[in-house]
Amino acid sequence: MIRRIPGNVPTRSRAVVYNGVVHAVAVSPDKTPSVYDQTRLALAAIDRSLADAGSDKSRILTATVFLVDMGGKAEVNRAWDEWVARDAAPMRACIGATLEGDDLVEIVVQAAV
Amino acid sequence: MIRRIPGNVPTRSRAVVYNGVVHAVAVSPDKTPSVYDQTRLALAAIDRSLADAGSDKSRILTATVFLVDMGGKAEVNRAWDEWVARDAAPMRACIGATLEGDDLVEIVVQAAV
Amino acid sequence: MIRRIPGNVPTRSRAVVYNGVVHAVAVSPDKTPSVYDQTRLALAAIDRSLADAGSDKSRILTATVFLVDMGGKAEVNRAWDEWVARDAAPMRACIGATLEGDDLVEIVVQAAV
Repeated sequence: MIRRIPGNVPTRSRAVVYNGVVHAVAVSPDKTPSVYDQTRLALAAIDRSLADAGSDKSRILTATVFLVDMGGKAEVNRAWDEWVARDAAPMRACIGATLEGDDLVEIVVQAAV
Repeated sequence: MIRRIPGNVPTRSRAVVYNGVVHAVAVSPDKTPSVYDQTRLALAAIDRSLADAGSDKSRILTATVFLVDMGGKAEVNRAWDEWVARDAAPMRACIGATLEGDDLVEIVVQAAV
Repeated sequence: MIRRIPGNVPTRSRAVVYNGVVHAVAVSPDKTPSVYDQTRLALAAIDRSLADAGSDKSRILTATVFLVDMGGKAEVNRAWDEWVARDAAPMRACIGATLEGDDLVEIVVQAAV
């Protein structure tokens, strides 16, 4: 069975659960110019989607962080290191890419449920 | 058992099936300058790979859309919204990136088989 | 059970194994200006992570290659074609993106264990 957790747009889900794994995506709801704050807020949105799926950050397998300006990676890392579960470090790729509008960071994770 | 569905190049598959999940990638076979048309044609190629794997778009879990010009995102969304299965919205990330040659969009999905 | 294989940074793993699939990420440990050599060395690092997880390149399902300069894709392909397991072609996406420092290529794979 596939479980879909609706987002803001009817044609996309913010999370999908299947076969013991949840896939979730988030940007920051607040388009503050701080990469640190956008990362923190996107990670908080990920926390909510994981909770809705019956998982949590200690069960994340992989994370892909898309970042508009690679110069902000230290700020991403600061928010990440404050947030990540101790003794449960995900595989992570941090990739410089273009995002929509004032989004500075977009985060995709998959976690065990 | 891993099932591989060959593409145009012997060292890469256009889809791979394992453990109840198919992973597929597509670009548009026609390098038209229309982002809408390339998206539509890439999604049609995804449909074919999903069918070959015994799945279909109503069972997609996640999609990652790599887009050369984020200014074309509304056109991607138009093709996506026309195509996506009702009541089966995938998790989707749309990322601005560089692609090869005249490719304007490249789409990766994973779907339940 | 989730198995995490530590990397250089305590808050990230270079590979994570769950549910019969290993997820691994690598860049080249040597920041040579040759895209071919960085690809070769990143793929060798992937080999090591797969071995640590009890898998190998003949069991890779998908690969995502993030490449700083799409002009180097032929060099990526050369290293890839020399390396890839015969009759076991993964699904692959090759995406132009920004990476950190002198990294020219970053590779993410998932493989059956």
